[in-house]
Amino acid sequence: MKRGIKHYSIGEAFDDFILIKEANRGVASNGKPFLTLILRDTTGEIEAKLWDITKEDEDVFTPEQIVRLSGEVNQFRGKPQLKIMSIRPAQTTDGVQVDDFVEKAPVAKEMLMEKLTESIFEMKNPKLQRITRAFIKKYQEALLTYPAAAKNHHEYVSGLAHHIVSMLALAKELHRLYPEVNKDLLYAGIILHDLGKLKELSGVVTTSYTLEGKLLGHIPMMVGEIGKMADELQIEGEEVMILQHLVLSHHGKAEWGSPKPPLVREAELLHLIDLIDAKMNMLNRSLENVKPGEFTERLFAMDNRAFYKPLFEEN
Amino acid sequence: MKRGIKHYSIGEAFDDFILIKEANRGVASNGKPFLTLILRDTTGEIEAKLWDITKEDEDVFTPEQIVRLSGEVNQFRGKPQLKIMSIRPAQTTDGVQVDDFVEKAPVAKEMLMEKLTESIFEMKNPKLQRITRAFIKKYQEALLTYPAAAKNHHEYVSGLAHHIVSMLALAKELHRLYPEVNKDLLYAGIILHDLGKLKELSGVVTTSYTLEGKLLGHIPMMVGEIGKMADELQIEGEEVMILQHLVLSHHGKAEWGSPKPPLVREAELLHLIDLIDAKMNMLNRSLENVKPGEFTERLFAMDNRAFYKPLFEEN
Amino acid sequence: MKRGIKHYSIGEAFDDFILIKEANRGVASNGKPFLTLILRDTTGEIEAKLWDITKEDEDVFTPEQIVRLSGEVNQFRGKPQLKIMSIRPAQTTDGVQVDDFVEKAPVAKEMLMEKLTESIFEMKNPKLQRITRAFIKKYQEALLTYPAAAKNHHEYVSGLAHHIVSMLALAKELHRLYPEVNKDLLYAGIILHDLGKLKELSGVVTTSYTLEGKLLGHIPMMVGEIGKMADELQIEGEEVMILQHLVLSHHGKAEWGSPKPPLVREAELLHLIDLIDAKMNMLNRSLENVKPGEFTERLFAMDNRAFYKPLFEEN
Amino acid sequence: MKRGIKHYSIGEAFDDFILIKEANRGVASNGKPFLTLILRDTTGEIEAKLWDITKEDEDVFTPEQIVRLSGEVNQFRGKPQLKIMSIRPAQTTDGVQVDDFVEKAPVAKEMLMEKLTESIFEMKNPKLQRITRAFIKKYQEALLTYPAAAKNHHEYVSGLAHHIVSMLALAKELHRLYPEVNKDLLYAGIILHDLGKLKELSGVVTTSYTLEGKLLGHIPMMVGEIGKMADELQIEGEEVMILQHLVLSHHGKAEWGSPKPPLVREAELLHLIDLIDAKMNMLNRSLENVKPGEFTERLFAMDNRAFYKPLFEEN
Amino acid sequence: MKRGIKHYSIGEAFDDFILIKEANRGVASNGKPFLTLILRDTTGEIEAKLWDITKEDEDVFTPEQIVRLSGEVNQFRGKPQLKIMSIRPAQTTDGVQVDDFVEKAPVAKEMLMEKLTESIFEMKNPKLQRITRAFIKKYQEALLTYPAAAKNHHEYVSGLAHHIVSMLALAKELHRLYPEVNKDLLYAGIILHDLGKLKELSGVVTTSYTLEGKLLGHIPMMVGEIGKMADELQIEGEEVMILQHLVLSHHGKAEWGSPKPPLVREAELLHLIDLIDAKMNMLNRSLENVKPGEFTERLFAMDNRAFYKPLFEEN
Amino acid sequence: MKRGIKHYSIGEAFDDFILIKEANRGVASNGKPFLTLILRDTTGEIEAKLWDITKEDEDVFTPEQIVRLSGEVNQFRGKPQLKIMSIRPAQTTDGVQVDDFVEKAPVAKEMLMEKLTESIFEMKNPKLQRITRAFIKKYQEALLTYPAAAKNHHEYVSGLAHHIVSMLALAKELHRLYPEVNKDLLYAGIILHDLGKLKELSGVVTTSYTLEGKLLGHIPMMVGEIGKMADELQIEGEEVMILQHLVLSHHGKAEWGSPKPPLVREAELLHLIDLIDAKMNMLNRSLENVKPGEFTERLFAMDNRAFYKPLFEEN
Repeated sequence: MKRGIKHYSIGEAFDDFILIKEANRGVASNGKPFLTLILRDTTGEIEAKLWDITKEDEDVFTPEQIVRLSGEVNQFRGKPQLKIMSIRPAQTTDGVQVDDFVEKAPVAKEMLMEKLTESIFEMKNPKLQRITRAFIKKYQEALLTYPAAAKNHHEYVSGLAHHIVSMLALAKELHRLYPEVNKDLLYAGIILHDLGKLKELSGVVTTSYTLEGKLLGHIPMMVGEIGKMADELQIEGEEVMILQHLVLSHHGKAEWGSPKPPLVREAELLHLIDLIDAKMNMLNRSLENVKPGEFTERLFAMDNRAFYKPLFEEN
Repeated sequence: MKRGIKHYSIGEAFDDFILIKEANRGVASNGKPFLTLILRDTTGEIEAKLWDITKEDEDVFTPEQIVRLSGEVNQFRGKPQLKIMSIRPAQTTDGVQVDDFVEKAPVAKEMLMEKLTESIFEMKNPKLQRITRAFIKKYQEALLTYPAAAKNHHEYVSGLAHHIVSMLALAKELHRLYPEVNKDLLYAGIILHDLGKLKELSGVVTTSYTLEGKLLGHIPMMVGEIGKMADELQIEGEEVMILQHLVLSHHGKAEWGSPKPPLVREAELLHLIDLIDAKMNMLNRSLENVKPGEFTERLFAMDNRAFYKPLFEEN
Repeated sequence: MKRGIKHYSIGEAFDDFILIKEANRGVASNGKPFLTLILRDTTGEIEAKLWDITKEDEDVFTPEQIVRLSGEVNQFRGKPQLKIMSIRPAQTTDGVQVDDFVEKAPVAKEMLMEKLTESIFEMKNPKLQRITRAFIKKYQEALLTYPAAAKNHHEYVSGLAHHIVSMLALAKELHRLYPEVNKDLLYAGIILHDLGKLKELSGVVTTSYTLEGKLLGHIPMMVGEIGKMADELQIEGEEVMILQHLVLSHHGKAEWGSPKPPLVREAELLHLIDLIDAKMNMLNRSLENVKPGEFTERLFAMDNRAFYKPLFEEN
Repeated sequence: MKRGIKHYSIGEAFDDFILIKEANRGVASNGKPFLTLILRDTTGEIEAKLWDITKEDEDVFTPEQIVRLSGEVNQFRGKPQLKIMSIRPAQTTDGVQVDDFVEKAPVAKEMLMEKLTESIFEMKNPKLQRITRAFIKKYQEALLTYPAAAKNHHEYVSGLAHHIVSMLALAKELHRLYPEVNKDLLYAGIILHDLGKLKELSGVVTTSYTLEGKLLGHIPMMVGEIGKMADELQIEGEEVMILQHLVLSHHGKAEWGSPKPPLVREAELLHLIDLIDAKMNMLNRSLENVKPGEFTERLFAMDNRAFYKPLFEEN
Repeated sequence: MKRGIKHYSIGEAFDDFILIKEANRGVASNGKPFLTLILRDTTGEIEAKLWDITKEDEDVFTPEQIVRLSGEVNQFRGKPQLKIMSIRPAQTTDGVQVDDFVEKAPVAKEMLMEKLTESIFEMKNPKLQRITRAFIKKYQEALLTYPAAAKNHHEYVSGLAHHIVSMLALAKELHRLYPEVNKDLLYAGIILHDLGKLKELSGVVTTSYTLEGKLLGHIPMMVGEIGKMADELQIEGEEVMILQHLVLSHHGKAEWGSPKPPLVREAELLHLIDLIDAKMNMLNRSLENVKPGEFTERLFAMDNRAFYKPLFEEN
Repeated sequence: MKRGIKHYSIGEAFDDFILIKEANRGVASNGKPFLTLILRDTTGEIEAKLWDITKEDEDVFTPEQIVRLSGEVNQFRGKPQLKIMSIRPAQTTDGVQVDDFVEKAPVAKEMLMEKLTESIFEMKNPKLQRITRAFIKKYQEALLTYPAAAKNHHEYVSGLAHHIVSMLALAKELHRLYPEVNKDLLYAGIILHDLGKLKELSGVVTTSYTLEGKLLGHIPMMVGEIGKMADELQIEGEEVMILQHLVLSHHGKAEWGSPKPPLVREAELLHLIDLIDAKMNMLNRSLENVKPGEFTERLFAMDNRAFYKPLFEEN
C-alpha cells in the first residue's frame, strides 16, 4: 500500500507516482525558465522545482498529469520541498489514474446517490419534487464528483454530495423535533442550495473559480436556473419563488452574499443546517490532525480560531 | 386651475375631487367601524377619518378611487387632517381620472421614449443592442409609467424612465471625458439596471413591494431575466454575462444588495452614475421646498442629513 | 372552558378572573392617584386603568394577585384596553390559582425531568456526570419552573427545562451523525449553559432582571458556580475548566456576551444548538399566529425580520 | 527614442540614464555598507543594490540624482532587479534632466492653465471668483506641477491640475443636466478642494508626507488658508464659510477625514465628482496594463478589487 | 428663598417669576394661534401653552424674557405641564434678572479666572504661553460664561471654564505622576481645546448650534484661529503646529470628529483627560438625582447606559 | 558594567552571559536538527541558530537557562542575528542569575508593597478592606513579581504591582478632585482588577498564556475567585457583587472582553484609570527610544499609531 507524501520526513528519498496539481513557469536568475510544480496525492501536497526546462517539458508537465518522480524530500524556508532527480509522465501501461491521487468523501458515490433518491421519494409536494428530481437528473454526474468548495470544507471528490446528504440527515431529525417544519421545502432547498457551484468551480481535481463564478457567483446563477427549470417543466405556483428564496438567502446575510436574509422558516433552517455541517466538517478534519492537549492550526473560515482538543478525549 | 391640497391652511374649507391612496378600517371606542383615508393629489397627501361606515362604504372607498369631498382642513396632533362633511365616489360624467392626481416626471413620456431610442441607435455592439431593445419592447408600457422607487428618489409617474434618461445623458458625457469607457456596455447597463423594479413594485399609483420583491428583490430577478432573454434571442458570448454582472453589482456592495461588487470598469461607473442621479433628484426636490438660509428636513436615504440652502442662492 | 383575553373583541363585556402582572401608580390631571394594571391570562395581556384609588387599593392590587373583574373591552390609541366596572381580589374559596393564568411549556414537568435523568444516565465520564447531577439536584425545583428568558424565546413556565430537553434531543442526533463529538461534554454543557438564569431572572410569573443579573450576567455567575461545585465535590481535572469554557463561550462572540469564543468542538456545537432551538421556538410561535400568505410581525430578536408563511402551508 | 525600464526582460543588458527615486543605506552580512536604490524613468521603477559603497558614494547617489548605469536585469524573489556593472552621476554635458524621467499628465501645463482660467471667467459670484483667483495666483507654479496624491490616482507631474481640470469638465456637464446646481460654488470648491496637498506632500519627484501633512492633514490646513485669504481680501458673507465647508466635507464622511459630511448640495456633488475622477483615473491606468480576458492586479484604493477587462474590448 | 419648578407636585398652584427658554407658535384646531413655552429656572424646565394669542403676545413672550406667571401644575401625557391663569412680562422694578434663572458652575467666575491665570504662570515655554494668554485675553468674557456644551456635560453658565479648570487640576497631577509629560504643551492644549465652542454655540441662556458650528464645527474653526493668532503674534516654530494638532485630535478618532488621531503624547493625554472630566461631570450630576439602590435614567452620551448607585453609598 | 545586547553593532564580537528565552527545534536542509534560540538580557533580544545539535544539547539549552556565549553579531534578512562560536550553560560558580537578565519595574518591590499596604490602611469599608487584604496576602509573592501583561505595557518583572500602584496614585488624586467617588471601592477594584493574570500568564521570565488563560481569561477567573474568597471570609452584602462588577467590566466593552460595561461610577473610573496608566507606560517607553523630531515605531496596542516627539522636547 502507498505511503503518501505527507508521511515522508526531511532527508528521505521519494520514488513513486504523484499527480501535478499546479505548474507555474518562472525564469531563474541565470535567465533560464523553470517550473514550480505543486504535486499531490491523497495525503497532501508538496512543492518541487523543475529547472532548465524545454518547451516540450512545459507541454508535458501540466496540471492533472500523473508523473513518475524520484528525488529527495528537502526543506526550503521552513517548508518541505521535493528535490527532483528524475521525472517522466505516467503511461497507460503504468496502471495509475487521476482518481488514485485525490481525496474522496468517506461515503461511496453509490451510497450518496441512494440517499438522495430516498429523500426525493419522501417528498410529497409534487412541484418541489419534480424540480428537485429534474436537477439531480441534469447534473447527476457532476453532482456526485464535485467538491463542495475550493477550500475550507468538504473540499474533496464527492464533497458536495456528501455535504448535501449529511444536511438531509440533519433535516430529517429536525423535522421530527419541530414537526411544523415543511420537510419537502427544506429537502428541496438542501439539495439545490449549492448546485450553482458546479458552474462556479472549475473542476474536481484542480478547483478554482470560473469567470462566471467570479462575476456572478453561485447563488444568483442558481436562482436563475431554478426559474428556467420551472419554465421548462411548466411548473407554476409559489413553490418556485419560495425555493428560489431559500437558495438566495442561504448565506444568511447580505454581507455574506445573500441579498435577502431568510424570510421563510425553512430558509432560516437551511442556513443553520448548512452552517453546522460545514463547521463540523472543518472542525473534525482539523482536530483529527492534533493530539489531545494540543491546539489545531488557526482555521481561517472559523474566524481564525485555533481549537483545543481536551486531554480527556480518547482520540 | 386646481389649487392642490398642500396649499390649504388650517381652518380652510375644501370642496374638490381628490384620490384615495390608502384606506384602512378601524373600530372606534364606541364599537363602530371607521375608515382612515390617505387622500392625495399632485401636490401632496392628507389624512381623513370617515366615521360610522357601512359595508357598502368599505367597498366603495378603496385605493385608486377618486372622490368628491367637501369638508374643512383641521389640525390633529400637530398634523393637518381633513374633516369630512360629505363624500361621494366620482362618476364618469365628472371628467376626472387617476392620472390627474398623481405626480409625474417633468419630462413627457414621448420625449423619454425618444431619448431611449436614440441611445439604442448609438450602440454598435449588436448583442448588447439586441438584448436592450428586446427588453424595452417587452416592458415599454410599464417602463414609461413606473416610478423608480417606492420612495426616496424619482418616486413619481415615469420616474424610472426619467432616471434612466438622466443617467444616459451623464454616461454620454463621461464617455466623452473618458473615451476608454465602453459606451455600449454602459448604456445597456443603465437601461436594464432597474427594470427588475417593474416586478418588485406593485404599481404606479399605490406603490408597495410585491411578495416576489420582498423575497427575491429586483436585482436577482433581473439577472435571471437577462439570462432567459439571451437564450430566447440565441445570443451567446461574454456580453451576456458581463451585462448580468453590471445589473448584479450596481448597488456597489454586498451589504447594499449586490452579492458581487463592480469588477468591470463600466460596472463601477454604472454604480456611480446611479448614485449621482438618485442623490441629485432627492436633493433638488427637497431644497425646492426650503428658502435660502434654511435647512431641509432630514433625508433618511442620505444618511439622515439635513441640507442647508445658502443665503446667496437666488432660488 | 375559559375563553382567554386575547379572544375578546372591542365592545365586548368581560367578567372573569384574571392575573395582575404589573401595577404602576400615576396621578391624573385632577390630582387623584390611579393604577395602570397589566392583566394577563394564558392567552395574552391587556391594560386597564383603575381610577381614584385608595391607599388600600394600592396594597391589594399588586403583581401576582388574581382579581375578579367585570368590565368592557375598549380601544385606546389603537390598542385594546379593559374598562373596569368592578374589581375585587380573588379569595381562596374562588378556587383559582396563579398557575391557571400563566403560559406553560407544551411538555409536562415530569416528562422534562425524566428526559433530563435519561440524559444523565447516558453519560459515561464520571466527573462530568457528577457535576451535572449535583446541579440538577441543587436547582431542581426552579429549573423545572423557570422560563428560559424574560422574553423572545421559551418565555413561559418550564421554558428553561423545555429548551434544555429540546437541545438534548438535537445533541443526541448530532452525535449520531458526527460520532467524533464528545456526547458527555456536550450534554453537560447543554444542561448547565443557562442555569445562571435562575439567578439572573427574578421569577416565574413576573420575570425581570435581578440586580445581580444586570451587573454580572448569567454567564459569569454560572462559570463561578461550576468552580465552587467542583471544589465541593472535590473534582479535579480538565473537565471542570472545559465545562466552564462551554458555558462561558456559548453566546459565540464577545459582543454577544461571551468573553471567549468557542475554542473546543463541543463548545461550538453547543452554541449552534442553542441558536437553532431558540430560533425555532420563536419562529414557530410567531408563525402559529398568522395565516398562509401573511407575514408575522417583526421579530426583534431575529434581526427584526418579518417571516412569510407560504400559501402552500396547510397550517 | 528611449525604451523605458518597464520594457526590459529578465536577462537583458541595460545601459542608459535613469533617475534615483530612493536610496537607503544597509549593512551586508560581511559588515560592509551598501545602498538599495529605487530607480525610475517614465515607464516604471526597478530596484538595484550598490555594494561596498564609500562615504562619497553615499553623498553622490541620492534621490533626484540622474545616473548613467550599465548592468543586467535579473530576478530576485520573483521581482526584477537591476544588477549594476558600472554607475556614475550624470553631468551637465549629458543633456538629461529630471523632467525626462518622471511621468507627466497627458495634458500640457499650458492647456491646464488655460482651462482653469476659462472656468474662472465663467464664474459670476464676485466673492467666490476673487478668492479662487487669488489662490491660483498664489500657488500657480506648484499647482501646475504637483501630483494629486503620493500614490493611487493622478500620481504624476501636473496630476493635481489634471484632476481639477477633469473635475471641472464633469461639473460643467452636471450643471447643464441639473441647472439648480450653483456652478460658481461648485467650480470654486473643485479648484480649491485639494490645494492643501501642496503643503501636505513633500514635492513633485519624490513625493512623501510632510510633518504638517501627518499631524494636521490637507483638509484642515486648507480650511484655515481660505479663512486667512478672505481676511486679506476683506471678503465677507456666507460664501467664505460655505466654501470652507465644501473643502472640509469633500471626503464625504468623518471616518474618511471630513469632520462634517456634505450639508450643502454642491458639497455633496463635489464629493461625488472627486470620487468619479479619482476612480476612473486609477481604473483606466490599471486596465491599460492588461489584455482583454485578464484581471488587473488588486487595487488597494478600490477596496482591493481586481478588475476584469472583457474579451469584447478592442483595447 | 425660591422653591424651584422641579419641586412642585401635580395639582399645586404656582405663582412666581420664571424665564422663557423657548417659544414656538402653533395653530389650534379652532384655527387660533397659540404659543408653546418652555419655561425654566435653576432647578429645571416645564412646558406651558398660551392660548388665543395676539400679535403683541408673540412679540413679548420670546426667549430670554422673564415673566410673572400664576397657574397650576397639571399633567399631560405623563409629563407635568403648567396651566397658565395669568402671565405678564417682568419689569425693571421687579428686580429679577436672567442670571437668577439659569444654572451656574459650582465655582465662581473669579476663582475660575484665578486658576487659569495660575496655570499660565506655571508655563515656561514662551511661545505656548504667549499664544494661550492671548486667547484668554481675547475671549475672557465669553470664556467665563459659556457652557462647555449644549447638553450632556458642563451645560451650565461658566461650564466651559469649569471644565478647563478641572482638567488643569488633573493635568497637574498626571504630570507629577508621569514627569516625561510636557506640562506647558498639555496646559495650552487644555485651555484652548474647546474655545471654538464660543463660536459653535449660540449663547449662554438658550444654547444651540450656530450655522458655522453646523457646517464647520468647533475643531477646524479653532485650528484656523490658532494659525491666525500665531501670525499676529509673529510666533514661529513647531509649537504652533503641535498645538493645532492637540486641538485637532482631541476627540480621539476620525469618526468622533478628529481628522487626525492623537500622534503626540500630550495629545493622547489631552483626549483622555477631556474624557474623564466630561464623564465624571455627567455621572455625578445624574447620580445626585437617585437614591442608593436605584439606577439613573439612561445617559445617551455614555452609550445609553443607566448607572447604579450602590446601597452602601452614604449619599 | 554590562553593555547589553541592544547596544552591539553588526560585525561586532560578543562574549558574555545571556539568558535563553525560547528554544525551538528545527531540521536543516541537510537533515540535521538545530535550535533557534531567542536570547535576552535587560536591554533586548537577539536570535541565534545552534546547528548540528545532539540530544544532550536539546536538554541543556532550554528556556530560562543562562549561557556563556561567544560569537559575532551578523545580519540576516534585515535583522541582527548572533552567530555562535562557542556556547556553554552557566554554572553556579559563574555568579549569574536569571534576575540579572530580565527587565524590572523602576520601583523596588519593597516600595510597591509599602504603597499597597498604605492604600489598604486608607480604606474604611471593612468588607472591601478585608477582601482586598486577603487577596494581597494570598498572592503576595506572585503579585510582586509578575508582569502586567505578556506584551504591550508593564511587561517586566513587578509590572503588575507597578501598574496597580500607579493607578492608586491616580485614584487618590481623582478622589480629591471628585469627592463623590467612593475611594474604598475604587481602591479595591484597582488592586484586584488584574489579579486573574497571575493564573492567565505562565510566569515571570517567559510569559505566555496558560490553557486556562486561553479558554477562560483572567476576568471571569477573577470574578469567580472574589466569590469564593467572600464565602471563605463569610462576607455578605452588595459590596461583594459590586466589586465583582468592577473587575468584570474593567475592559469597558463586550468586544474588549467585559460581558457587562461599567454600570457603577467607580467601575467607569477604574476602566479609565487603567487605560491612562497602560497607555502612558507604552508611550513613555516608546518615546524614550527616539530623538526629538522622530516618530516611534508603530504601536500595535495603540491602534497602530506612530507617535511624534516634538523638536522642542529637551528629551
